[in-house]
Amino acid sequence: MTQNTEDSEAERNRRHAEERKAVKAERDVMMQSKTQTGGLLLIHTGAGKGKSTAGFGMAARALGWGQRVGIVQYIKGKWITGERRFFARFPDQVRMEIMGEGFTWDTQDRARDVAAAQAAWEKSLEMIADPELDFVLLDELNVALRYDYLDLDKIVAALKNRPRDKHICITGRDAKPELMELAELVTEMRMVKHPFQQGIKAQRGVDF
Amino acid sequence: MTQNTEDSEAERNRRHAEERKAVKAERDVMMQSKTQTGGLLLIHTGAGKGKSTAGFGMAARALGWGQRVGIVQYIKGKWITGERRFFARFPDQVRMEIMGEGFTWDTQDRARDVAAAQAAWEKSLEMIADPELDFVLLDELNVALRYDYLDLDKIVAALKNRPRDKHICITGRDAKPELMELAELVTEMRMVKHPFQQGIKAQRGVDF
Repeated sequence: MTQNTEDSEAERNRRHAEERKAVKAERDVMMQSKTQTGGLLLIHTGAGKGKSTAGFGMAARALGWGQRVGIVQYIKGKWITGERRFFARFPDQVRMEIMGEGFTWDTQDRARDVAAAQAAWEKSLEMIADPELDFVLLDELNVALRYDYLDLDKIVAALKNRPRDKHICITGRDAKPELMELAELVTEMRMVKHPFQQGIKAQRGVDF
Repeated sequence: MTQNTEDSEAERNRRHAEERKAVKAERDVMMQSKTQTGGLLLIHTGAGKGKSTAGFGMAARALGWGQRVGIVQYIKGKWITGERRFFARFPDQVRMEIMGEGFTWDTQDRARDVAAAQAAWEKSLEMIADPELDFVLLDELNVALRYDYLDLDKIVAALKNRPRDKHICITGRDAKPELMELAELVTEMRMVKHPFQQGIKAQRGVDF
């Protein structure tokens, strides 16, 4: 494998121009057939693996088309994850917000958790409204809703009134029926077989 | 959003060294507790969306850890996809093989399809054996098996004897029971609601 084949500045500019042109062409088509295309609301739910991972795959795909991506992670989880390290490489294409440290899911301090979830939702609203972004991933928002850290009615209302030129993907188990009703695409990731069942530990690259 | 914040050469080298160090530390841990970790065989199957996309998300996550990734796409599909454009940006970390043009799934020329599938499998075997690669994605291999373009027994035997320091992810609907039996992790992507049902066209970033 070659050691360093990063693109030259000129090549990068050329590619950037080409990609923006492709995005514009795509948008023109979208505008011509409004009833057929437009921003989709997608939900990845279920107890199986791959919900967030498919969201990150969508982000990678969007970046490939020169699109711009916003990501809000509603779960504390591991502080350093492969996806955070990876998407941090593209500051000109990706805006990423990690929810406050206080959010732990164990409700030892519910008021702090609610405040953290609320702050993350404010960031989400900004991204949904931002015309610069083509795709917004609200990672594990379903879990914040499941714990009633956010007001479902408000979230449903905001998503109903979202700008229609943007795709939004919401992940997390136990998606609320009201959100699934609103979504154009719902996939349930169903666990058929899981390595934890076999005593295998979580691993870099696979699990985080 | 900033216009161009690509890293300097020195920063890139520093990051690279740091990532390789992290990968080495991870491997050392893996070697210390063989029964607990080690390369996993993962399968994403089912009729829902997100099978390949989660595979690409895993690839992005692995890249975030400085790991090296091999991808074989067993389906012709769209010639230019977001994921191909995206992963082509990382020639020092990603090796990507797209199966021969002949492979169309419509069996107008079965002999040619079988030959193309066979060539893709040979590439897959090379990647599985390559100690440089940490993660190998065999995208839509299940479909080639479903059409009996490849000999299942041979594939099962090769996967059984795979090097144990590498993760392999196989995607595609209708995964063979023999493969699921072999895998440590199987997720079924179940379609709950799909935009095609509502007359919405496939779109850049979401579908390809």
